[in-house]
Amino acid sequence: MITGKNYVGYGLSAKGEATYATFDPKSNSATEWRFYEATADEIDGAAKKAAAAFLEYKNFSGKQKAKFLRAIAEEIEALGDELIATYTKESGLPEGRAMGERGRTMGQLKAFATLLEEGSWVEATIDTAQPDRKPLPKIDIRKMLVPMGPIAVFGSSNFPLAFSTAGGDTASALAAGCPVIVKSHPMHAATGELVASAIVKAARATGMPDGVFSNLNSSGIEVGKQLVLHPEIKGVGFTGSIKGGTALYKLASERKEPIPVFAEMGSINPVVALPSALSGKGADWAAKYAGSITLGAGQFCTNPGLILGIGSTSFDKFVNTLGDEIEKLAPTCMLHPNIHENYEKGKKALSQQEGVHVVASYEADSAPNYGKQKVLTVNGEDFMKNPKLHEEVFGPFSVVVKCADAGELTAVIEQLEGQLTGTVLGEPSEFKTFSKTIDALQGRVGRIIFNGVPTGVEVCPSMHHGGPFPASTDSRFTSVGTSAIKRWVRPVSFQNWPREFLPEALKDDNPLNIMRILDGEHTRAKVG
Amino acid sequence: MITGKNYVGYGLSAKGEATYATFDPKSNSATEWRFYEATADEIDGAAKKAAAAFLEYKNFSGKQKAKFLRAIAEEIEALGDELIATYTKESGLPEGRAMGERGRTMGQLKAFATLLEEGSWVEATIDTAQPDRKPLPKIDIRKMLVPMGPIAVFGSSNFPLAFSTAGGDTASALAAGCPVIVKSHPMHAATGELVASAIVKAARATGMPDGVFSNLNSSGIEVGKQLVLHPEIKGVGFTGSIKGGTALYKLASERKEPIPVFAEMGSINPVVALPSALSGKGADWAAKYAGSITLGAGQFCTNPGLILGIGSTSFDKFVNTLGDEIEKLAPTCMLHPNIHENYEKGKKALSQQEGVHVVASYEADSAPNYGKQKVLTVNGEDFMKNPKLHEEVFGPFSVVVKCADAGELTAVIEQLEGQLTGTVLGEPSEFKTFSKTIDALQGRVGRIIFNGVPTGVEVCPSMHHGGPFPASTDSRFTSVGTSAIKRWVRPVSFQNWPREFLPEALKDDNPLNIMRILDGEHTRAKVG
Repeated sequence: MITGKNYVGYGLSAKGEATYATFDPKSNSATEWRFYEATADEIDGAAKKAAAAFLEYKNFSGKQKAKFLRAIAEEIEALGDELIATYTKESGLPEGRAMGERGRTMGQLKAFATLLEEGSWVEATIDTAQPDRKPLPKIDIRKMLVPMGPIAVFGSSNFPLAFSTAGGDTASALAAGCPVIVKSHPMHAATGELVASAIVKAARATGMPDGVFSNLNSSGIEVGKQLVLHPEIKGVGFTGSIKGGTALYKLASERKEPIPVFAEMGSINPVVALPSALSGKGADWAAKYAGSITLGAGQFCTNPGLILGIGSTSFDKFVNTLGDEIEKLAPTCMLHPNIHENYEKGKKALSQQEGVHVVASYEADSAPNYGKQKVLTVNGEDFMKNPKLHEEVFGPFSVVVKCADAGELTAVIEQLEGQLTGTVLGEPSEFKTFSKTIDALQGRVGRIIFNGVPTGVEVCPSMHHGGPFPASTDSRFTSVGTSAIKRWVRPVSFQNWPREFLPEALKDDNPLNIMRILDGEHTRAKVG
Repeated sequence: MITGKNYVGYGLSAKGEATYATFDPKSNSATEWRFYEATADEIDGAAKKAAAAFLEYKNFSGKQKAKFLRAIAEEIEALGDELIATYTKESGLPEGRAMGERGRTMGQLKAFATLLEEGSWVEATIDTAQPDRKPLPKIDIRKMLVPMGPIAVFGSSNFPLAFSTAGGDTASALAAGCPVIVKSHPMHAATGELVASAIVKAARATGMPDGVFSNLNSSGIEVGKQLVLHPEIKGVGFTGSIKGGTALYKLASERKEPIPVFAEMGSINPVVALPSALSGKGADWAAKYAGSITLGAGQFCTNPGLILGIGSTSFDKFVNTLGDEIEKLAPTCMLHPNIHENYEKGKKALSQQEGVHVVASYEADSAPNYGKQKVLTVNGEDFMKNPKLHEEVFGPFSVVVKCADAGELTAVIEQLEGQLTGTVLGEPSEFKTFSKTIDALQGRVGRIIFNGVPTGVEVCPSMHHGGPFPASTDSRFTSVGTSAIKRWVRPVSFQNWPREFLPEALKDDNPLNIMRILDGEHTRAKVG
């Protein structure tokens, strides 16, 4: 049952007058649900409840928090078909994707639970006292990571589950010990409410304090702004556009107390096709990339929007095959008319740039809001002199750049802004010849891939999803994988602290049996 | 021989017309040296050289960089008496302090060298492939930390060696693999030039690329601003005032490509004296705190500027004894007339606030620029309603707050901004009664101390020197200790990368024999 109300902590709340509906892009009509825009009072209430909950929640053990996260996963599963039906209606995405994303969301929650149960993530570091050290005695100091406080999470349009209400940002912040206030994404507010109800149910069942989680509806930018400016909010997670993420980053940096904003904003994910990839395996890569470009109607932050190669007969052949392959595919529904409209605008704007040629453009009739794929090509010189061509077009779209030689290929890469990923297609035997090119690519990306496609982001400890600006606002942190927890914590040193009042992670006998750095050595040993 | 010139990479440069002198606060006169203000051209030259050097330096092995850092320490030592004499002349600090700080600076450089030689700091994380995994095969992904690029370091006035030219910021950035451009502190430009010459000598001797280090003179704010805005600069280290640090932080966040600013800005370092500390050991603590408040003329970011307790006869006695003890001490010379003048202004401004009483005020004649200690007292209510009393007065100064009860004590702490340190004096048996007070304190500080003084910052892995804003701009990072290296690096994931082209830290056979996380386990084992 969708109520359309906000969750201010455990309480459903609808103090405002303004409402909005979500939209079913496949039927091209509004859904039956109406959502109450959160009021200033509700925002303040959620923030104050979060601050109060933090005082208790921050001291919960890893095992308690893990129980909470596992309960959320169970409650999401228990939503059953209603969640899948709501998701597909609000997103236009197919059922298989909904199921897959639900699985990923539950998997993420469980991965953080496992991290908490193991416990070593707090980076416990102990330097024992040396009372006889000369000229000054050394005092016992012990350091570990502690949570920062209430976090605001902005749900993302293209992952209604895995990057939204109970997605990676929420899971990692709750795991860290931080209460979360979600600003629900207006395109899937019903999906968001269902997931929020699952979180609240899990929180109650596992004895979490009221305020550990809130879910606020918002169709515009005001709720998000107020949330980011609220003094009780200590950090922000965001997945979305460069414009939106940068605006939040600037807003947060202008606060009296600036707070970190982890915005994962997007990228054109350059792919460098070395000569061997075009000659021998050109047709294979063309087919694979036609699939990667159109996957999920191109609505992925890792969508390959830029393919670079050196002009040759095999390059031309690759481009033609890519065009043929991509035209064979049937377009799919995009998330929302606004996203579809922006896609059409972006496609048109880039198609009109100087020196651009159309490789493929799906033109046949299709249902409203379907994203028709397009691939353009341009030479290296024209690409470099036109920053417009470096912009992301969110959808099934890619630009293929034909460079004159290896030097120009490297120059093109050196001109690119920060990227989430970079991909190299070819043979290891070509790495030495193209070492400058590959080095330049690595310097601009958060993840570098050999002989693969950038779409598909594995949730694992070695995953880094975040690159130099504008791919993300802080290239030192990932939004995918268990390391995402590090965004919401800060170290505290305890100097000469009474043993019995040290946190468990720092106690002499290592009751949590975690890996620690003890007098410079990695060990699970007790102190002394 | 002090030339007064800038180091633009290896080259001495004096393109500008503007010059300035440093000052000897003890003789109250300008020194004999004149320094050439760096020009826009020199700033740009240093940044471009740094960017070019980065392409080479980032790939240097840990052992090569360690050799460079150790050579810097040796060259600093080789400067001998000239360095000590220059330091004491430009800072007014005594020779013993100069020697101690030189030792610490060399110690820091060597500590980073040791960290590099051991190598595990790169957080190598490997998830091996599972080609048979269902529904999708798992691809090999490996992650490690890589340097971000050229870093601008702002020397600090109060640590001419340990937090300046070759101080913790420079040492950690060079260790990370980032070239450094120092904006020399105008109060000790000669000390800075000597140390810069040592770095350049060490860089040449160990085969580092030209541009790995530059040193720019500047008496105003323009050079620093231009440096922070230069597109080749990728991060900033700063130690100094809240005003200066916040200005740089805002400037950097307004760049087209925002960059992180790690500003360690200061703090009043609250000390909570629990009842037992005042009754039994009041006299001891009074004597110790008289020493801590006046140490180095109070010119430490960890100077205890705020002492809190609950009113009682023993509280009054402690305050009186603190007054008596601190008046016994002889004032010492401050770093510069400007610092002395600001101290006098701040002291006066706080003394005039409502409800404030003077506990002790050294009034006897002394030489110019000597910092005369002062201690004020005020009750909790007056303190809470007057934010002016929460401000740092840089010098041998402290405010003692007499709270009505435990509740008011906690309320005072809850009103404080972020702090570098917080200290609790008392007995462990009092922790339960004062758990809210202690919890509130811990939530606001980067380091919490039991029965000690906040001055004295040990350089070790467990040290965290950085607290919630405005103590620092990013509470997740420390500026002291080997973890400071983490400010200048970002993770990169290598997906399906050819084994022979992986960085050494990620290779199958673990040639560096470092601790890694391999399929979720901490180990030094090889892959497979």
